[in-house]
Amino acid sequence: MASSSSITISPATLSRSSTCLHGSTQKLHPATNSLSLPKFSGLKSINTATANVSRRRIPIITRLPVRASAVETLQKTTDTTLVEKSVNTIRFLAIDAVEKANSGHPGLPMGCAPMGHILYDEVMRYNPKNPKWFNRDRFVLSAGHGCMLQYALLHLAGYDSVKEEDLKSFRQWGSKTPGHPENFETLGVEVTTGPLGQGVANAVGLALAEKHLAARYNKPDCEVVDHYTYVILGDGCQMEGIANEASSLAAHWGLGKLIAFYDDNHISIDGDTEISFSESVDARFEALGWHVIWVKNGNTGYDEIRAAIKEAKAVKDRPTLIKVTTTIGYGSPNKANSYSVHGSALGAKEVEATRKSLGWPYEPFHVPEDVKKHWSCHVPDGAALEAEWNAKFAEYEKKYPEEAAELKTIISGELPAGWEKALPTYTPESPADATRNLSQQNLNALAKVLPGLLGGSADLASSNMTLLKMFGDFQKNTPEERNLRFGVREHSMGAICNGIACHTPGLIPYCATFFVFTDYMRAAMRISALCEARVIYVMTHDSIGLGEDGPTHQPIEHLASFRAMPNILMLRPADGNETAGAYKVAVLNRKRPSVLALSRQKLAQLAGTSMEGVEKGGYIISDNSASNKPDVILIGTGSELEIAAKAAEELRKEGKAVRVVSFVSWELFDEQSEDYKESVLPTAVTARVSIEAGSTFGWEKIVGAKGKAIGIDGFGASAPAGKIYKEFGITAEAVVAAAKEVS
Amino acid sequence: MASSSSITISPATLSRSSTCLHGSTQKLHPATNSLSLPKFSGLKSINTATANVSRRRIPIITRLPVRASAVETLQKTTDTTLVEKSVNTIRFLAIDAVEKANSGHPGLPMGCAPMGHILYDEVMRYNPKNPKWFNRDRFVLSAGHGCMLQYALLHLAGYDSVKEEDLKSFRQWGSKTPGHPENFETLGVEVTTGPLGQGVANAVGLALAEKHLAARYNKPDCEVVDHYTYVILGDGCQMEGIANEASSLAAHWGLGKLIAFYDDNHISIDGDTEISFSESVDARFEALGWHVIWVKNGNTGYDEIRAAIKEAKAVKDRPTLIKVTTTIGYGSPNKANSYSVHGSALGAKEVEATRKSLGWPYEPFHVPEDVKKHWSCHVPDGAALEAEWNAKFAEYEKKYPEEAAELKTIISGELPAGWEKALPTYTPESPADATRNLSQQNLNALAKVLPGLLGGSADLASSNMTLLKMFGDFQKNTPEERNLRFGVREHSMGAICNGIACHTPGLIPYCATFFVFTDYMRAAMRISALCEARVIYVMTHDSIGLGEDGPTHQPIEHLASFRAMPNILMLRPADGNETAGAYKVAVLNRKRPSVLALSRQKLAQLAGTSMEGVEKGGYIISDNSASNKPDVILIGTGSELEIAAKAAEELRKEGKAVRVVSFVSWELFDEQSEDYKESVLPTAVTARVSIEAGSTFGWEKIVGAKGKAIGIDGFGASAPAGKIYKEFGITAEAVVAAAKEVS
Repeated sequence: MASSSSITISPATLSRSSTCLHGSTQKLHPATNSLSLPKFSGLKSINTATANVSRRRIPIITRLPVRASAVETLQKTTDTTLVEKSVNTIRFLAIDAVEKANSGHPGLPMGCAPMGHILYDEVMRYNPKNPKWFNRDRFVLSAGHGCMLQYALLHLAGYDSVKEEDLKSFRQWGSKTPGHPENFETLGVEVTTGPLGQGVANAVGLALAEKHLAARYNKPDCEVVDHYTYVILGDGCQMEGIANEASSLAAHWGLGKLIAFYDDNHISIDGDTEISFSESVDARFEALGWHVIWVKNGNTGYDEIRAAIKEAKAVKDRPTLIKVTTTIGYGSPNKANSYSVHGSALGAKEVEATRKSLGWPYEPFHVPEDVKKHWSCHVPDGAALEAEWNAKFAEYEKKYPEEAAELKTIISGELPAGWEKALPTYTPESPADATRNLSQQNLNALAKVLPGLLGGSADLASSNMTLLKMFGDFQKNTPEERNLRFGVREHSMGAICNGIACHTPGLIPYCATFFVFTDYMRAAMRISALCEARVIYVMTHDSIGLGEDGPTHQPIEHLASFRAMPNILMLRPADGNETAGAYKVAVLNRKRPSVLALSRQKLAQLAGTSMEGVEKGGYIISDNSASNKPDVILIGTGSELEIAAKAAEELRKEGKAVRVVSFVSWELFDEQSEDYKESVLPTAVTARVSIEAGSTFGWEKIVGAKGKAIGIDGFGASAPAGKIYKEFGITAEAVVAAAKEVS
Repeated sequence: MASSSSITISPATLSRSSTCLHGSTQKLHPATNSLSLPKFSGLKSINTATANVSRRRIPIITRLPVRASAVETLQKTTDTTLVEKSVNTIRFLAIDAVEKANSGHPGLPMGCAPMGHILYDEVMRYNPKNPKWFNRDRFVLSAGHGCMLQYALLHLAGYDSVKEEDLKSFRQWGSKTPGHPENFETLGVEVTTGPLGQGVANAVGLALAEKHLAARYNKPDCEVVDHYTYVILGDGCQMEGIANEASSLAAHWGLGKLIAFYDDNHISIDGDTEISFSESVDARFEALGWHVIWVKNGNTGYDEIRAAIKEAKAVKDRPTLIKVTTTIGYGSPNKANSYSVHGSALGAKEVEATRKSLGWPYEPFHVPEDVKKHWSCHVPDGAALEAEWNAKFAEYEKKYPEEAAELKTIISGELPAGWEKALPTYTPESPADATRNLSQQNLNALAKVLPGLLGGSADLASSNMTLLKMFGDFQKNTPEERNLRFGVREHSMGAICNGIACHTPGLIPYCATFFVFTDYMRAAMRISALCEARVIYVMTHDSIGLGEDGPTHQPIEHLASFRAMPNILMLRPADGNETAGAYKVAVLNRKRPSVLALSRQKLAQLAGTSMEGVEKGGYIISDNSASNKPDVILIGTGSELEIAAKAAEELRKEGKAVRVVSFVSWELFDEQSEDYKESVLPTAVTARVSIEAGSTFGWEKIVGAKGKAIGIDGFGASAPAGKIYKEFGITAEAVVAAAKEVS
């Protein structure tokens, strides 16, 4: 269990080419001897004087061909002077952009510029002119506030999304360079980060997706899925619980191609991290099962960083944490290594001082010609990488046409024709069932026709009913399987699913817990909504109907809280057809997540429900009025639609003209035409009663000032479900009484 | 940094009295030799055959006097036969209650009964007839689903809250024994648990409160604050990120009197924890800075458990994790060690088999006479403990009357007379300021008059403006200080504050982050609301008004999402007087938490605002109409009240009769009389415009179908705040236009 690491740097590692990939060719000098650092377990007590790594450059010029395998670090670079110039370019682009915006975070880019340079210039495989190339290496800046680092790198690498004018409009209205990385604004940004800890969990999802697709589609003679996932996280990310959750899973799953750089700069917003963070992060990651390497000089130790990446790639059975000790705001004579450089512009005077200190005579936003020239190789190199991969894929397609066809739909996100025919249908005669069970029927039906569907639960698979029966568990040694076991880690579950969804358009992750525990993962769900990730949130036990577990487990305000959240669909199906409709909607909405609130308890299959109805959000399931003018409209969702239908029966017996409306998704209903809305909820009919076993907050909009909303505005209770429904007045009798009152 | 532990069991530790405290007296046999286990770092590889601890009982009968110091474990017990009988009583009370309810979780109580027995019978100091005795040891069942363990223990110990009939009505409507522990239902339960990971964070808060009060009030000659905090957590808790956050802080703060029992049973709902949880928990806790002990036989190893507690108490500079390896459902021949015993009744047949297997001939719910007799000592012993403490406090009061008086107000929760006079007041001439700054003025004013006020931020103290200037940081060696530094750990911050609030009525914890990051801590905030904990949530940067950080940092749906949550006050003050009013309300509401949404940007001090107005939730700040019939009512909250006031000026210039209403808290307004509500929002005036830089969800209730709600129903943007306000139409011009439209 205990893992220890030694950094071994060989001359081969230290050797670098003096030019780009397309430069002159020489044979790589073989490793002849190596230099060992002390064992990792003694990390904290290493005498840095004795541990100094010789950074003598060995003047061997190498030229490596473009290689298809991502397993080895690309060993290319240029002379240190040019590297340092490039690193300082990155630093000053960040400094200048923050200065111009008078807002932003210069400290991280200044400290992380060396690792950023090495990643984007020497290690990562990407194509600037096709940022969505499938087999690219993924990079996540979990410490998203340092986004100028990434913008500078994308700019230097030749991405069209970040031109000089974009750097100059950093943090301005309508720019491509917002205050935190946003995948929906800036091509080349993989996920939306900023809220701390999310990014590292996204990266786990990205690495999981790679491992899964590689296991399913790669052939011994043709590996078409083969990339690394890199992430930079800071002290803030490390403190967040979500990061520990995700890191625990990453090791459990053996995500060997996940390489995390921990920017260990000892500074957070409130000052030195010592005031609240005295744990041993290295030892914690070892306990979680990671390989851990410490780069002691992240400011100028280029070879240390390179060696660490090489070592990380050699460790294939688990993820690697490279702790890179850096100085926040490196180069600023008066602000480096202090919280003042974390989140504010340096100020003209200190910018000037930093220019002097780093020997930077240039105007703001200037990229020196030699640096520009050096980075210019990435456009042709990237094109070559993609072309090579395309050729490989063509070969793969010839040999394995079926697999290639399937993988192509995953890559493109195109849904197989007629996929929706797989969704089950029900009649009122179908047996009553809990929507969580009906959900499982849908998931299993969809898994057969949607090759990109995969997911699981936060240790509640048997309660959430989320197992795909024809598949096994995605585990370290069975990564081709499609059932994910997240453990009791809701927050990282959501963020990991965001990573999966952002990896490739055709991957459709779903994840599950009790609806009330969306409170644990709300930050990740909000990012799903913001970053347009199609994650399906399967949320069961959606009301007091779960019974005895009591108020800690009974959602009340949760429906309202998601209805208020932008760009997320809150769906509460009432029976089999509506559950199928909810899944249809969830799959079709490529640019927003869906939350399905599902019952623990059995529900009748109702007459009048339909998939088509669900797609409209609100629709009539029954009506005995002659025109569009019933005496009263009863509106229900989910498990309470049945109660509304029962109340309607009673009222109709008494001669009333009653309409029953299923209001399965407020967002979808809002998007319908005014005519359609009027046809369901005519303005003239103010006698309206809604019933939903949750907060009435927001229902005034639907029932109007003259209507009545039946719901629960306090917490639930521990008792059998039927008893709670009765005590809380969520009954047909209450609906009948309210209907009489309002009509 | 590296910590290792050896379990050393001496004969003294193993010696036990054969009776209760009030039994016969003999001298404690001195330790003569000890038996060492291998070093902890080799834990995983210990050969259990060689590591077996001798459990030979040494037949020395001891009688210890009631001791005021809680530092040493009470070394009292009875013969093993009776202990086992007591442990089986606990097991069967749990089995029988779950069986009768046909719902619940028997597995944990069956596995944890031995540690439960030892804690409540031998170790913990409490008074069953006064469950709120200030100096009691605190116990938290973080794995709250196993609540029958705690109910059984409270029952045996003589708490009036859990009588036999309460056990028989487990999980039934109106019972004192709900499905998860609820402090507001059951005296003797300290906090509300069930949502995993919360309890261990609550325990950190309880232990923090003890350490803080001890540091402030204890004198070398008189220690009036002196108790332990015990917590049982399971595998599920361990997987949750919040538990790692809280555990990191517990070690950082050096909470030596926090002792956590990790019920290491390898089973969670989805099966063996191996499917998702392969980290080394022991090593992780060592990395966090805890002392770690492993009890290998938690099922019958009573002496091992006792020795571990003794060792834990001897380690005073950091918390201790006792990993207790148990068998879930111990005693059930066919279900033990499987997920099937986790969350379901055993079933009649398996109950019978378990009775046979454990040799239990009794009827359901039977407590054997000798067990009953044995436990009967806790009522007199508890009374003696409290009496002794009362005597000590009387002595303290004589010697240190000022400190005693202050501590008494903290213990009673009584607010000092006239405390609210400390709140600052403002006039329209006072300088414009951000409400986050005004909040800091209030916090600092209140800290002088409320000795129980303490709190801090999740690494945003300088942004949230939460520092108490006259105090230093609460740290390991300065626990008397009142500024808490939570690091970037929002979720545990909330739960720790719940623990502080539940510790003693007069402690008033506040905590802070950006409003949008309530998403990280919502589960803890919901528990605040449910368990009636007066936590003050200081949430700054409450809208797009924060500007450049962009949509990841800009709350939209958050106001609505808290307005929908039961028993929590959502307050959005507009200026200085309203901020003071919000604090007044927050302090006065002893049984509910408050969320203060505060601006980053400067706001004018408005005419007409008042603390009294805030207490009513919604009130008129200006009105130029003659009667209660203005042409239009403009309604604003927080930073948009100023905009509403400006729009009113414009409209009044045009001759309109305009009322401006501040709607600072929906919940408080809802609680006013119908007459009052009508006086502010007369039914006859349907021309209403609301403005709030957040979701319009819910506003229909206030503005009605004929009114207009101005807000933001999509995500925000990264740009200077003024620009975003303008682009999103959150302007006085928009209010004027809307007012004309509706009136």
